[in-house]
Amino acid sequence: LTRRVRIRVTFSSDDRNRSYEILIRDRILDELIEGTLPLPNANSFIIVTDANVNKLYGSKLLKGLSGVTKAGLVSFPAGEANKNIETAWKVASELSRLGADRRSVVIALGGGVVGDLAGFVASIYKRGVDYLQIPTTLLAQVDSSIGGKTGVDAPWGKNQLGTFHQPKGVFIDPRTLLTLPPHEILNGVAEIAKCAIVADREMFSQLSKLTKFDSDIPRKFIVRACRIKARIVSEDEKETNLRVVLNYGHTVGHAIESSSNFRLRHGMCVTLGMMAESWIALTMNLLQRTDFEKQFELLRRLYRYSSVNLPILNKETLFKFALTDKKTDSLTVRMSLPREIGKMYTTADGNYRVPVSKEIFDGSIDYLRKALSNG
Amino acid sequence: LTRRVRIRVTFSSDDRNRSYEILIRDRILDELIEGTLPLPNANSFIIVTDANVNKLYGSKLLKGLSGVTKAGLVSFPAGEANKNIETAWKVASELSRLGADRRSVVIALGGGVVGDLAGFVASIYKRGVDYLQIPTTLLAQVDSSIGGKTGVDAPWGKNQLGTFHQPKGVFIDPRTLLTLPPHEILNGVAEIAKCAIVADREMFSQLSKLTKFDSDIPRKFIVRACRIKARIVSEDEKETNLRVVLNYGHTVGHAIESSSNFRLRHGMCVTLGMMAESWIALTMNLLQRTDFEKQFELLRRLYRYSSVNLPILNKETLFKFALTDKKTDSLTVRMSLPREIGKMYTTADGNYRVPVSKEIFDGSIDYLRKALSNG
Repeated sequence: LTRRVRIRVTFSSDDRNRSYEILIRDRILDELIEGTLPLPNANSFIIVTDANVNKLYGSKLLKGLSGVTKAGLVSFPAGEANKNIETAWKVASELSRLGADRRSVVIALGGGVVGDLAGFVASIYKRGVDYLQIPTTLLAQVDSSIGGKTGVDAPWGKNQLGTFHQPKGVFIDPRTLLTLPPHEILNGVAEIAKCAIVADREMFSQLSKLTKFDSDIPRKFIVRACRIKARIVSEDEKETNLRVVLNYGHTVGHAIESSSNFRLRHGMCVTLGMMAESWIALTMNLLQRTDFEKQFELLRRLYRYSSVNLPILNKETLFKFALTDKKTDSLTVRMSLPREIGKMYTTADGNYRVPVSKEIFDGSIDYLRKALSNG
Repeated sequence: LTRRVRIRVTFSSDDRNRSYEILIRDRILDELIEGTLPLPNANSFIIVTDANVNKLYGSKLLKGLSGVTKAGLVSFPAGEANKNIETAWKVASELSRLGADRRSVVIALGGGVVGDLAGFVASIYKRGVDYLQIPTTLLAQVDSSIGGKTGVDAPWGKNQLGTFHQPKGVFIDPRTLLTLPPHEILNGVAEIAKCAIVADREMFSQLSKLTKFDSDIPRKFIVRACRIKARIVSEDEKETNLRVVLNYGHTVGHAIESSSNFRLRHGMCVTLGMMAESWIALTMNLLQRTDFEKQFELLRRLYRYSSVNLPILNKETLFKFALTDKKTDSLTVRMSLPREIGKMYTTADGNYRVPVSKEIFDGSIDYLRKALSNG
């Protein structure tokens, strides 16, 4: 991808100055390091990253920025296990130690964990400072870096403490995918598949034709996923309704992830989640069997690609976690379900959150368990 | 105050549904306990309070609410020392344990510490839930419960982690003042004096005529302070400019409070802060000597009322803390200064934040030290 793709995220109901651009281009990170890309005005820039990404790009970017402005860097140990309030607190303390003030800008450099945590800290540090996203994983590039959801995990569930805080810009360099292990690519492919099922039948059919899912994934899928996400977020920033479609596969997926104590990969959990939730859509007569089978086939291929041990699927535990999902109230599990590939179902009153009974939820876990044990 | 006073806080630039009402009336807390006052729709109400207020009103309110809706209560140890991230984390965990979901409503029942902390937790719990303020101290009634500033303290300064998160309503019962110790009344009187100096010359002159500052303080001062705060917050919610006038006395005041490790009362620190900052305004030729003397006299009376030991006033420590103030950047201390009683000064380009040199800052601390040692 040599030309620069620009996608705008706007918020009609609010002041213009909260809108921002997603810039996608191979080697855009080099442009940032070399200082050839303009940055917003700021008293200083503080890079927040994890130890892995720090080794690859952190010190280079810090050096580049230090040439033209006041800059600092905070690094924390990599991994979802560190996406918690203690780490957020430590990062905030470091911001203070580095002299960050209200007109400093945080740069989230890394994958989804870094983006969520750095965005959360930016949203609460001195009641909110600006931040930029430089996502370096496929998952973060096509999903978590866009839309301003920030957060940390709690023992009682994923992202249970967080805010909506939009970044001032997202810089996506697909070249960073070259350094990722295969499972990290699959994390992102799961979200790309979700975007296709939710909003783009043609994209789904192109994705289904791919014979491998690696860092050479055609750039058009990244661009397309970003466009879909930007459009949905622009329309419903705070997830009052439409935006929940992006949670497809995530109600069951997060429950699986939580019940594994975050040992299972997010992408695999969401893939399993979409398998279960597509079965629910089928069983509730929202989705036709042909479209169910088409997506189940792609999802099963993605699952096999991930080549992990069979996850433990305990119905009671999963249902309990599904009840703590932010979409649900304390009594009813709600999820967003497809009515065909490329279109999500709404209830008669236009609600994308569909209540699902305990029986059908349990049935989907039984079905999933059987499907997986059949290989 | 037997009639019910209604004051509306609105946000013109944003959607209407974020606006809310401040209701002021003697025994309004009893109305809430007896369920004669309508509450918003919610899946459940969770009262967040501290151990002191819990004994006085917490269990009564819980009992009252439980009669008509699902309700729970979380209590934490009283005192500014507990307004930190650990307490916020514990309260959030309790909300989860009590089954609070996105449509639950938090009720902040207590003084400024409870309101700031409960509001902060409400703003980050599941990316934000609604909350109501029932302020039970004079300080909280006239200042901190209005305007949506939330936060917790950090070792490097007050309110360094927080958000802007507007409540859905504020219920003020001046009868709660009857149970307050004298120093708690003085905390509130300091903010009332601030409101008068910032925005209402007539109110200042009425306040100066009072011969005592106790729980019998005329209700009109509470109502007037609420109106001033509501108007300023409506105009500049996120403190881009005008709202900083409400920080009068707080740059030096917070520095004194921080350097005392929060052992000194907020109201006394703000009183001392206004004494120092009015001297700065005088010395920078922004404020006439007659108006300086008038306000200094009232402030000194308030300080004497508080009858505490002389605070330690170390210039270097105070300046260091003033630099971490959220109004300032990392290089320059900025504060909001009066040009006469009832009017705040703006720079030529309309900015209410006025840069203050280290020399003048130091001079104000010297002056303050002398003024206090003269009794």
